[in-house]
Parts: sequence; C-alpha cells; structure tokens
Amino acid sequence: MASVYASIDLGGTKTACALASADGEILVERSIPTFSNQGPEAVLGRIAALLREEAAEIAATPVAAGMGIPGLVDRREGVTLFLPNLATRWRGVAAARMLASCIGCPVYLLNDARIATLGEMSFGLGRNGGTMVFLTLGTGIGGGVVIDGKLRLGPLGAAGELGHQTILPDGPLCGCGNHGCLETLASGPAIGAEGVRLLRSGLAPKLHELVGGNAEEVTPRQMAAAAEAGDEAVGEAIVRAAAYLGIGVANMVNALHPDLVVLGGGVAAIGALLLETVRATVRSRVRMFPVDGVSIERSVLADKAGLYGGIALAARAGEL
Amino acid sequence: MASVYASIDLGGTKTACALASADGEILVERSIPTFSNQGPEAVLGRIAALLREEAAEIAATPVAAGMGIPGLVDRREGVTLFLPNLATRWRGVAAARMLASCIGCPVYLLNDARIATLGEMSFGLGRNGGTMVFLTLGTGIGGGVVIDGKLRLGPLGAAGELGHQTILPDGPLCGCGNHGCLETLASGPAIGAEGVRLLRSGLAPKLHELVGGNAEEVTPRQMAAAAEAGDEAVGEAIVRAAAYLGIGVANMVNALHPDLVVLGGGVAAIGALLLETVRATVRSRVRMFPVDGVSIERSVLADKAGLYGGIALAARAGEL
Repeated sequence: MASVYASIDLGGTKTACALASADGEILVERSIPTFSNQGPEAVLGRIAALLREEAAEIAATPVAAGMGIPGLVDRREGVTLFLPNLATRWRGVAAARMLASCIGCPVYLLNDARIATLGEMSFGLGRNGGTMVFLTLGTGIGGGVVIDGKLRLGPLGAAGELGHQTILPDGPLCGCGNHGCLETLASGPAIGAEGVRLLRSGLAPKLHELVGGNAEEVTPRQMAAAAEAGDEAVGEAIVRAAAYLGIGVANMVNALHPDLVVLGGGVAAIGALLLETVRATVRSRVRMFPVDGVSIERSVLADKAGLYGGIALAARAGEL
Repeated sequence: MASVYASIDLGGTKTACALASADGEILVERSIPTFSNQGPEAVLGRIAALLREEAAEIAATPVAAGMGIPGLVDRREGVTLFLPNLATRWRGVAAARMLASCIGCPVYLLNDARIATLGEMSFGLGRNGGTMVFLTLGTGIGGGVVIDGKLRLGPLGAAGELGHQTILPDGPLCGCGNHGCLETLASGPAIGAEGVRLLRSGLAPKLHELVGGNAEEVTPRQMAAAAEAGDEAVGEAIVRAAAYLGIGVANMVNALHPDLVVLGGGVAAIGALLLETVRATVRSRVRMFPVDGVSIERSVLADKAGLYGGIALAARAGEL
C-alpha cells in the first residue's frame, strides 16, 4: 500500500485533520473545535486522538505529518513562538515533538499562510511551477510568494505577509499594530462591517431580506448575493474592498512580475465581482510593463489549501 | 593582462562609459551628452567612439560590454522595446548588435534599475549573497529584487518596479499612468517640488539663503542642508517623503523578509534624516515578525551602481 500522510490545519476556533496519499488524495478528513483555552497539551492530545481514529478507519498509519500553525514558528526546531489567536499564545511550545510522540511519526510545522501557499503550489493552480503570488482571504489576509517554483520563507518562515502591506497610510488600526494594512480594508470582517453599516443605514434592502434584518448574519457571501439581487450600495462596497485588494496585488505584480496570482480563502469565493475588480485594478495600476501574461485566478482548493499544504509538507519530509 | 570589460549607462540626458576589470576596478570612465533626439545610430556611434578612445588610453580592448537601458528591453535578442525618456523611443532597435559591430565584442543589455541592482549585488553591500531589496532614488524610483543571490527578472526583465507601488490610492498622477505611485511622493522631483512650495510660501528661510531665492536651484540635497541649518518645514517635507518611502520598503519587507534593503541613487545620499525615517517607518509598520535582522543601508556605490552592474553583466557574459 502507498504511504499515507497526515495533515493538520490548526486554527483559532477549529482544527481540521486529514489523512491523504502523497499525490494529494484526501482519504479521510474531520474537524474538531480547538478549545485553545485548555492549552497546548490538551489541544495536541485531541488532534492525536482524532488522527488515531481516522487511521483506524482507513486501516493505515501515517508516515509523516505536516501541520499549519496560525502564527510564528521555528520550523527547524518544530517549536511554536507566538500564536496570537490561541488563548495561551503557545510561546516556546515544542509542538512537533509533542505531537510526534503521540502519533508515532515525524511532524513538520509551517505557518498557516505559507502552508496554504505550499498547498496551492503543490496541488492547485501553481503546480506547474513558475512564480506565484498567493493571497488567502478570510478573517485575516495571509499570503505567500513562490519564486521559480520555490516557496519564499525568509529566516523566520514569515515572508509573504501580503495582507500587511500598507494600502492607506492613515487607515484603520490593524490587529498587527500598523494602520491601513490591506487586511483592514479587504478581509472578511472589513467587508462585512461595511455590509452592516449599509444594512443599519437602510441602504441595503436585498441584504436586509437575505439576513432577515439581522446584522449577525451579514457576511461577504450574503453581501455578494445581495449585490447580485440589486443592492447597488452593497455592490459598491465589494468593489471598493476588491480595488484595495487589487492595489495589493498590483504592488506584488510590479515587484515580482509573477506568472500567476491566486486568491484563496472563503472571501475569494464570493463571486465574480471581486475577482473581476482585482483584475481590472491590476490592469489599470501596473503600467510599467504589459500584464497580459499574468493570470489572476481563484484557488481551486477553496478553504482546503492549508490541508493540502500539510500533505505536501509531510510528503517532502519538511524539506522546502 | 587580465580581461577588460566595457560598461555603458545610457541615460535620457547623459551616458557614462567605463572600462573595468572583472573584479570591479574602474580603469577609465567618462560621460557624454546623450542627444537622444538624433536617434539610436548617432547615439550608439558616439558611445562606440568614446569606448574606442578609452580603450586606446589604457591600451586594452574590452572582451564584452554590459549596457543599462532606461526602459523595456528584450534581453535575449538585445533589442530595446520602449525607452520613454529617449526622444525617438527606440522601439525595436537592435542596440546590442549595432554596438557590438562597432566595438568588436558582444554587448549585453539590461534595464537600468535591474543593472544597478546587479551592480549592488555584485560589488556593493549585496555582494555576500542572500535576499536584497534595492531601490534607486533619483528623477524616478527604480528597483530590483534579489532572492537567495539571484536577481529576479521575470519574463520581461521588468520585475522590481518598486517605485510604482501604489502608496496613496488617490495620489498624484505618475509618469507611468497610475496615481499615487511611490515615485510621485518620494522621487527627487517630488521632494524638490515641496521645497519650491516652501520657498515660495516663505516657510524656508535657510533654503532661501542657500539657493539665493532661486527655485531653479532647489534640490533634495539643498533641502537637506537647509533642514540641517534649521528650516523645520523643510525637514518635515523630507521626513514626509521618507515615510512614504518607508511604506514602500515595509511592504517589500513584509512580502520577502530580505536580509538587506539598499537605497541607492542621488536622493539616498542627501543625509541621515531620510535613512533614519525609512528605518523608523519599517520598524513601526512591519509588525508581523521582528525586523532587527533586516539591514537598511545607503548604497556605497552612490550613482555608479548602474556602471558597476554593466561590468558584472559583461563579466557574466549576460548570464543572470
């Protein structure tokens, strides 16, 4: 039987665990709540238990595991350094060793945005090599850069923080401490907040219908549906956010002239309006050279790019 | 005798030609006006004549030449595609072949900002390898990106247009056609224009003294001297431009986490206020990972980075 690899996508609220073949076929996949307030040992213990269950289910044992980490990680030592979205922050947690001793195979760690980039370059649109700029659009905006087929990591595995480009020098406060980051203008919460404003200002009748007047239900996806149904102000809000996103993409196109730009994560999947606006913005803002050759596409891996990256990381035994 | 290489830095108004050894010792160097209105043949003929003079002077014949081109170039074919700052635009000019037939050795072409980056990575602060972001600050803002010791070119040799990052989405019109490019906010003309405004508004008494009240004499260098001498408003103008520059640098640090950022060109040499502001801006705007390891320095090659790049390009026989 061919080797089976484990992939873990550790998140602030939920964690997905999968077993897969080296060519990226996911054999079993399940998610559990992270309950990060219980600390690393409990979280890692639950992940190990779930992986054992999954292994029993398909009667196979993983030979290596790749794990996406929401924050800074010392990849060589397999130690987490600072995970802002996990309750206890995981400073100096030897997560790779701890999990490896529970599941009986080596575990490799990588920052979650970089592992999603690795997934896209291994099993997604970037699988033919070349130079790719990847952005993952969700609660935050993460990213990764692939140059001539090689994932750019930098000394801390932190290169690729494309969501923290400054787009408006005096813009809103970002979670990172800077102001006007792309993330403050085009993330899920940023787009959704403008939807809530329009809802409460009576400017979004279709959105009002769709969410039953409940601000809690306003999401970028609902907003895209409302725009489609005729809410002009909501459409404008999406275009505005997408134009900021397009600036971030254009900056990277100017700097790197990639073959491919891929937009992943849930927000990238809300519809054509966003993608078309990004493309138009890049065309209008990159003027130093023709950009016809730069493909700008939506990820085909949707919200599973990170899981696919974990498979690739495990199959490469952590070598990037 | 060791091989001698020719280097040509073709500019819109003047052109520098040098002969040098492979280890970057410039043996002879001279500049001539470009007179681009006379067309490519006349310009290239004058360059060839000057190189022959220089060769006679040091009694050596160059074995190859590297030439920096202010615009888009087809590097493989040695053909210029579009040079916006030269009168006749040089569309489809086989400049490498034409010059080679005059001087009797192969000629390699490269965009001027990329060749300056090559100079810095070969003979300047970047000579120890690693990942470097290079910006050249002058009439325009050019740039280049070196990843793990390799100059990033992209399919058209156009990657590295760091001066055309959008810093203010609704900012001033740029020569490239976009609005709010870094170049519109922190180039020599951008800084100088604010100096002229302060001069004419009576807000720059020291600058007034230094330039004898003549707006034509206002340069970033004079402004730096005036700020040093006590013109607060002028100092503020420099800090403002440098903070925009710092945003452009911070964006690249977030994206690539380089070991080194080098600021070249005449405007980078106007004094410590600019460099210190760039450093402070990067520290305050890159918050996703520690940036202590990122050196931000002024080029030691000053305005000769392009000439040094030509030597490197010739010595590498055009292989990058």
